Amino acid sequence: MNVEFINPFLKATANVIKTMAFTESIPGKPYVKKDGPAGGDISGIIGITGETEGSMSISFSEGCICLIVSNMFGESVTQINKEVEDAVGEITNMISGDARRELAEKGHVLKGAIPTVISGKNHTIKHMSTGPAIAIPFSTSGGHFIVEICFNN
Amino acid sequence: MNVEFINPFLKATANVIKTMAFTESIPGKPYVKKDGPAGGDISGIIGITGETEGSMSISFSEGCICLIVSNMFGESVTQINKEVEDAVGEITNMISGDARRELAEKGHVLKGAIPTVISGKNHTIKHMSTGPAIAIPFSTSGGHFIVEICFNN
Repeated sequence: MNVEFINPFLKATANVIKTMAFTESIPGKPYVKKDGPAGGDISGIIGITGETEGSMSISFSEGCICLIVSNMFGESVTQINKEVEDAVGEITNMISGDARRELAEKGHVLKGAIPTVISGKNHTIKHMSTGPAIAIPFSTSGGHFIVEICFNN
Repeated sequence: MNVEFINPFLKATANVIKTMAFTESIPGKPYVKKDGPAGGDISGIIGITGETEGSMSISFSEGCICLIVSNMFGESVTQINKEVEDAVGEITNMISGDARRELAEKGHVLKGAIPTVISGKNHTIKHMSTGPAIAIPFSTSGGHFIVEICFNN
């Protein structure tokens, strides 16, 4: 995977969570995801095609997404529901769009598919590209979430 | 969504499950998915771009995927593990590829992203396109599985 791809996704994530949900999220150090149960309670996943093929996911614990969505809606949300699922889909779409816009400026033309949102306590995600999956952890005052990107070599 | 898209995915699914895993799967009547907990224990998801954008998923109960993968590997598999996840990714890729090949012959050029595989007891999937999500149920001697396709209008 082109390491140039990591930073636009990192920046887009912090930016979207801040502008959409008025929530500060602090990125940790990106790492290569090894097999293991890095999971979440709700995830947005989006496929990416174009110059290369891949996928991006963002996974939240229930506590973390409830904080983010409460900030976004301006009212307290205490559990994952239909509105939270829609918000995760929207967040996923916006991060993918922002990151792809920055990559396009650098000459990498990528297209986003339509996101899907997975709900289910402690599910795990495996990206099937030929390249390594890069995980970018973020911390918020409501807990952690994780962005993963994976592209074919 | 173009209803012409449904049949190629239906045919490709039965064909891939039969030729890869020597397992008969009988398609039921496709229906428009309403909000509700149509879930599974393991799912493959793939984003699709091109003439339109969308996503396809295939979700299995643990019992059903264990039967399919046991048939595929020629040895008994009794629970979801790394090899089962890889098999679900491969099945997802092949169904998407077969269906897109048939659609290309009809003049609909679509591109597949890289699949992701979700594991987690009874997770649910929500497709975020603007069109309806079409669910196609299949039955096998090991239980049911479900294919969902969803495209932007």
